[in-house]
Amino acid sequence: MDDRVKEFDRVIMGIDPGTNVLGYGVLGIKGKTPSMIVMGVVELSKYESHYKRLHRIFERVTGLVEQFLPDELAIEAPFYGKNVQSMLKLGRAQGVAMAAALCRDIPIFEYAPLSIKQAVTGRGSASKEQVANMLKHILNIADGDMPALLDATDALAAALAHHYTSSRPAVPRGASSWKQFIKQNPDRLVSGTLPASEK
Amino acid sequence: MDDRVKEFDRVIMGIDPGTNVLGYGVLGIKGKTPSMIVMGVVELSKYESHYKRLHRIFERVTGLVEQFLPDELAIEAPFYGKNVQSMLKLGRAQGVAMAAALCRDIPIFEYAPLSIKQAVTGRGSASKEQVANMLKHILNIADGDMPALLDATDALAAALAHHYTSSRPAVPRGASSWKQFIKQNPDRLVSGTLPASEK
Repeated sequence: MDDRVKEFDRVIMGIDPGTNVLGYGVLGIKGKTPSMIVMGVVELSKYESHYKRLHRIFERVTGLVEQFLPDELAIEAPFYGKNVQSMLKLGRAQGVAMAAALCRDIPIFEYAPLSIKQAVTGRGSASKEQVANMLKHILNIADGDMPALLDATDALAAALAHHYTSSRPAVPRGASSWKQFIKQNPDRLVSGTLPASEK
Repeated sequence: MDDRVKEFDRVIMGIDPGTNVLGYGVLGIKGKTPSMIVMGVVELSKYESHYKRLHRIFERVTGLVEQFLPDELAIEAPFYGKNVQSMLKLGRAQGVAMAAALCRDIPIFEYAPLSIKQAVTGRGSASKEQVANMLKHILNIADGDMPALLDATDALAAALAHHYTSSRPAVPRGASSWKQFIKQNPDRLVSGTLPASEK
């Protein structure tokens, strides 16, 4: 376990699982204030075999889960792709990443790219660079800590979008609690359990 | 652990992961003779949510792996589907099932439906019923033990196809050992390790 997570009330891990690059970002929440704990990427293109990539995704997501013990996992999940072959591969990458969290009974929430951009920048049509700049501003990230690959900021954005979605009073539209929000939006919850604080 | 596996030298689990039904079949090999240990299906269509289905696939495959301790997992994996949506869902189902084996370091081998039919019946164009009948004949399965759903026989056929492919001298074309076969066909091996007997 990473000592940095100890100072937070709640830890949200965001991942953006692709077949060439996996982005991840870990957000710590203290009170209502989100802070970045870490973000980065796992480059998969060096592995020629698709299966080695799946194995690596599973290993790395398992490792991140063990290191940062997230309360929830937020996953960026596009629903459309250019062809059936690439969607099958993307589905496998998503499935393997999800299973690493299912192994530890961590609830998984998935968000379409458009909802993440909307939640973070207020505009569903924002570019990846605009999302990255907004994260830098909101989370006070130093220039030197900004990543070269935007898969990392995309993943962190998924975590932040989940934080906003799950804590903003406007979001559980009419729902008085998290529990009720999930009852009304069962499709948002991939896996079974709620964080202890919300039960 | 299921006592039935103790009498065999090697156990191969076959799975046919779909989004509505997951088929599974466990084959025990003693000497060169394969026998069916069990086959069955997990019905997923009763769960409305796609995420509950993924969770259930993960749970059941994990449970089967713990019960039958397979040395290898053979998976029936179609590479084509009717649309990107269904392929994404199928990919997730495959990924989650694969991860349950990756968790336990069980090597995974995938076979296209056509290769399975070819290996079991000698004809890539065989129907599911013909595959089921051939299994009944080869493995001496009693009428009463034949399943209602052909997903179960499809899964068992994947296990038997893997048995033939990995033990028939003709298959590692020119390769003198399993290790060499894998060296020449790295794409066949999903996960890293070989059964101890083959190292």
